[in-house]
Amino acid sequence: MNENLTTKLPRHKAKSSPELDDTPPGRFSDGDRAGLYKAIYERRDVRSEFLAKTVPEDVLARVLLAAHHAPSVGFMQPWDFLVIRSSPVREQIYDAFVSANEASAEQFEGERQSLYRSLKLEGILDAPLNICVTCDRNRAGPVVLGRTVAPEMDLYSTVCAVQNLWLAARTEGLGVGWVSIIQRQALHDILGIPQNIVPVAYLCLGYTSRFYRSPELAEKGWRQRLPLDSLVRFDGWDSTQESTHLSDSEETLLERIRQRQKHFDFF
Amino acid sequence: MNENLTTKLPRHKAKSSPELDDTPPGRFSDGDRAGLYKAIYERRDVRSEFLAKTVPEDVLARVLLAAHHAPSVGFMQPWDFLVIRSSPVREQIYDAFVSANEASAEQFEGERQSLYRSLKLEGILDAPLNICVTCDRNRAGPVVLGRTVAPEMDLYSTVCAVQNLWLAARTEGLGVGWVSIIQRQALHDILGIPQNIVPVAYLCLGYTSRFYRSPELAEKGWRQRLPLDSLVRFDGWDSTQESTHLSDSEETLLERIRQRQKHFDFF
Repeated sequence: MNENLTTKLPRHKAKSSPELDDTPPGRFSDGDRAGLYKAIYERRDVRSEFLAKTVPEDVLARVLLAAHHAPSVGFMQPWDFLVIRSSPVREQIYDAFVSANEASAEQFEGERQSLYRSLKLEGILDAPLNICVTCDRNRAGPVVLGRTVAPEMDLYSTVCAVQNLWLAARTEGLGVGWVSIIQRQALHDILGIPQNIVPVAYLCLGYTSRFYRSPELAEKGWRQRLPLDSLVRFDGWDSTQESTHLSDSEETLLERIRQRQKHFDFF
Repeated sequence: MNENLTTKLPRHKAKSSPELDDTPPGRFSDGDRAGLYKAIYERRDVRSEFLAKTVPEDVLARVLLAAHHAPSVGFMQPWDFLVIRSSPVREQIYDAFVSANEASAEQFEGERQSLYRSLKLEGILDAPLNICVTCDRNRAGPVVLGRTVAPEMDLYSTVCAVQNLWLAARTEGLGVGWVSIIQRQALHDILGIPQNIVPVAYLCLGYTSRFYRSPELAEKGWRQRLPLDSLVRFDGWDSTQESTHLSDSEETLLERIRQRQKHFDFF
């Protein structure tokens, strides 16, 4: 994208294809929509395919800005982004992963444990940079709009930022892997994160040699995608497809979901 | 998008603009990238602008499939989607909101409380449909890859699904509002959700008369966007911009963020 444009439109619009200009402001063209869906369907949790190639600062800036424009409860924006390139720091994080992962492997049995041990579950040292996304629970004072009866909403807002970051990275050709097998206290200790700040996500980020066609855990036989039509319920938990008579529109919705699932070759 | 295409490519690719075809598989064109960023920057939390207009089943199917393709810990896919159109059910949810919101308003003082009370914070009855996204904490058995030391990861996965849904909805011209001012137990009681299933998000969804240019809470003076460059740290919490000597690449990153912030007119 051209950095020198200073139009009032978001800069990312600048190099869009000409036909997008026919779309009224605020509307999304078929091409825009395709870009979003492509990002969603081709996003992967990357662990093994990182390249050492440097991520340009301008690309990283775009990815972080996308994260920063996530929704947040009461517009709290509770996140910080710790960009970690230091090898000594990443080595400590890696050791914390190894320790937690060894204990984790023991929780699986037999063939399942063998399969678990065969999986590479992080790219801490391989990726050129790591990002720890944290949540400051006190950022907007003691009472936050929308958090009065749901105190976890600030953590959820931070997760929305992670998902924005992940999708933006994918469109930039960058892989992201979320490493959740690290004791939270180890992140506090190694990164000096105060106890009132929650480390929500530890991410590895970088260019990759390739992206898996389907989620890696499916390709490697760990667990398969569930059919979405079995996860849709109507007007309440027990009003599942089996137990009630579906309306025409409910039947149509499930049928459309089944059709689309069948034709997505990555499903 | 043309529903009758049965190519091996994701269907959403079908009506993309021709020049996208020059992009190698797995690569994102400038147009694709623009679509994703447009969704991220123009997504809003909608409360007041819902239209009664019906959401076509095929559009809803696409939005739910996008949610279903979120990342999930151990490929657990812990979510269910309760699609709620029933007016009597929505009236009960609305009553639960009113009750929680009255108690919430009391927590703010003086002018802040007046401003709070002037805000419309939900579209439960105005939107043509509501969606409750839940998390089944036992979906993949007692031990889940990636959740061994971070049990909250299933809830976070469910939030990623919400964010995918939100972005997909925006590209379809649909507004989404996340209503967090409802006691969780009320959702269990009204929707018959078992106690081991967590209602993570209660969403209102529908076409809208318009989308705010900036987040509504900023436009109405509740709280403003923070400068992202103040939220980026390097190699640890205390290595902020003030306290350490920045490397060239760190200085460049912050400068690029500041430049982009300045030129986004919604910042």
